[in-house]
Amino acid sequence: MKNFKFVNPTQIIFGQNSIAQLSKVLPQNSKPLLVFGGGSVRKNGVYDQVVAALQDYEYSEFWGIESNPTVETIRIVIEQARRDKNDWVLAIGGGSVIDACKLISAGILVDKDPWDIVLSGVAKGPFVPLGCILTLPATASEMNAGSVISSQATQEKFPFHGQFPKFSILDPEVTYTLPKYQLACGLADSFVHVIEQYLTWPNQSLLMDRWAEGLLLTIKEIAPKVLDTDNIDYDSRAEFMMCATNALNGFIRRGVVEDWSTHMIGHELTALTGIAHAHSLVIVLPGTLRIMGTLGKREKMLQYAERVWNITEGDEESRIEKAIVCTEEFFRSLGFTTRLSEAGIGEDIERTLVQRFEERGTILGERQDMNFEVVEKILASCRR
Amino acid sequence: MKNFKFVNPTQIIFGQNSIAQLSKVLPQNSKPLLVFGGGSVRKNGVYDQVVAALQDYEYSEFWGIESNPTVETIRIVIEQARRDKNDWVLAIGGGSVIDACKLISAGILVDKDPWDIVLSGVAKGPFVPLGCILTLPATASEMNAGSVISSQATQEKFPFHGQFPKFSILDPEVTYTLPKYQLACGLADSFVHVIEQYLTWPNQSLLMDRWAEGLLLTIKEIAPKVLDTDNIDYDSRAEFMMCATNALNGFIRRGVVEDWSTHMIGHELTALTGIAHAHSLVIVLPGTLRIMGTLGKREKMLQYAERVWNITEGDEESRIEKAIVCTEEFFRSLGFTTRLSEAGIGEDIERTLVQRFEERGTILGERQDMNFEVVEKILASCRR
Repeated sequence: MKNFKFVNPTQIIFGQNSIAQLSKVLPQNSKPLLVFGGGSVRKNGVYDQVVAALQDYEYSEFWGIESNPTVETIRIVIEQARRDKNDWVLAIGGGSVIDACKLISAGILVDKDPWDIVLSGVAKGPFVPLGCILTLPATASEMNAGSVISSQATQEKFPFHGQFPKFSILDPEVTYTLPKYQLACGLADSFVHVIEQYLTWPNQSLLMDRWAEGLLLTIKEIAPKVLDTDNIDYDSRAEFMMCATNALNGFIRRGVVEDWSTHMIGHELTALTGIAHAHSLVIVLPGTLRIMGTLGKREKMLQYAERVWNITEGDEESRIEKAIVCTEEFFRSLGFTTRLSEAGIGEDIERTLVQRFEERGTILGERQDMNFEVVEKILASCRR
Repeated sequence: MKNFKFVNPTQIIFGQNSIAQLSKVLPQNSKPLLVFGGGSVRKNGVYDQVVAALQDYEYSEFWGIESNPTVETIRIVIEQARRDKNDWVLAIGGGSVIDACKLISAGILVDKDPWDIVLSGVAKGPFVPLGCILTLPATASEMNAGSVISSQATQEKFPFHGQFPKFSILDPEVTYTLPKYQLACGLADSFVHVIEQYLTWPNQSLLMDRWAEGLLLTIKEIAPKVLDTDNIDYDSRAEFMMCATNALNGFIRRGVVEDWSTHMIGHELTALTGIAHAHSLVIVLPGTLRIMGTLGKREKMLQYAERVWNITEGDEESRIEKAIVCTEEFFRSLGFTTRLSEAGIGEDIERTLVQRFEERGTILGERQDMNFEVVEKILASCRR
């Protein structure tokens, strides 16, 4: 097991009607800026619940954080927050809104362009405190310090480390009005988050392996119920919310190496084509496993095949191949296409992406053995 | 899934040579009180590592926290800390030292007898901040807010909620000099902690079930390697430390009901006879399962039998019975006796214990269906 440091101070308030508890965790006399996405919270009752909980507060609002939030929008929000002298930021939305708010809350008190904060990799503070009301389980941004921000100007997308939310309110009922596609995105995103921390090499931590497998098995088990939008089941939605948060809150990465190559390739695809984050992942992951699954990931692939997909028959190569097929079929069962050509992404994009990695000298993978040439092979294997 | 609130702000510094990082987490110019148990840390090098890390600090020491720490000792420590004007408490030891320090750090700034704090159930603060250097994986007190304190005067033992440690340093190598019996106590204690949160009823949270089972399977798997003190293996000790902490840091109790009846009965046995905490648990748990396993715990017992002990053959009664036998055999494989008579505890103690529960009107169990008469049956089934 690797040495590690761990801390996660975010308070979670989980369950039915939990938005009503907002006034118990947001300090009285604070003046929050409420940050929203495109307006779905007006239709599903979340906005009304927030307004009811904040009746004794003076607050401002900003509407219009986009998917894959851009630094261009965030600059505008920071200016507004400075003007209104907001001393709290409340993110009310999914991962995009929360990620945006991590940069907003890191930028208000700092005399620095927010894109420079992103490029520096780590926001040093001082921060305006951040609270979240989650509406879309997927990124776990509600319980970690990470954030991913895009630049329209440069068509780039990069992660940075900001602050942990002070609290996050998770009410599974807010997912009831989500369209099936967004639910599928959340399930896929969570699944791949776990894979990136798990599918490296075995015997680093037996417990972390079990916990990662527990997440994968649970996501598999609940997926059909979560996607059955005609028969909404509270417990499945609650389980989905738990899985999404625990897939990337640091709990399963303690003492183990991580990969994240699928995300790094996927981020470029999104930056270049606008494809949804989760969709980029379900295309790239099978390709990554086809190329790396019989190399450095071989042993863990066999464990994954056995413990997650119950594949115990056949030689090693065929068990690994079966596990990849099961993974891709699982993503297709969520409603995704899983090949670049199906998503209308051509070889020109592949070339641009590979060229970017070559120019930056990007090296990926838990063994740091994936250069642009390996990425080229992965993309070719994702083609059709 | 039940509604829940969760927060765990303790910073964990885990791994080889991590005690050297003490000066990075303890504020400069603080004046800590170092609190120790019986002196084993002088022999195993921990004391020297702490002194080396604290060379630039002014600190005091208190030696002599006993197993099952008593309020009588804690009163003396609080007086010393007030006299020395300590503004931090550092617990350097196992669960007993850390539990004691939770009460010490809650008592220094408060004009109240510490036993009254215990009896109130919750310390309200203000607290002197607390840091831990763990020497014995077992209770998870290093990453939770709970504490159990005994009173010599009244022969009583009660839990209370205090503060979370600000940080805890976990170096698996400090376990290398532990005697086999203490290692066995840590393994058993951790196993039963998980059981108390898991073995209630099923389908509350699929994920929490998987994570609890992951802990139980890992503890089972590593136990022989941890107890093989002739061939010390770093990774097994690291895994042991991870399991002990994660068995009771709140991670696996989110959204589920808990039991704790085995602990409540065990605490009384320890208070009345001085039997080691873990030993009391391995005696009481099989008895609890024999009485409750075919009642309210029936469904979960079948899941436990299948997923933890791989028992899938036979009718329900026989699978449940087999799982209980496996559990008791596991405890015996750690070196424990598992019956009251083997520990020299007679029926007079059983009667006193049951009488206490009757007088207090104690009701136990996740379904609140265990009164003193049920406890009487459980104790009788633990007899021989």
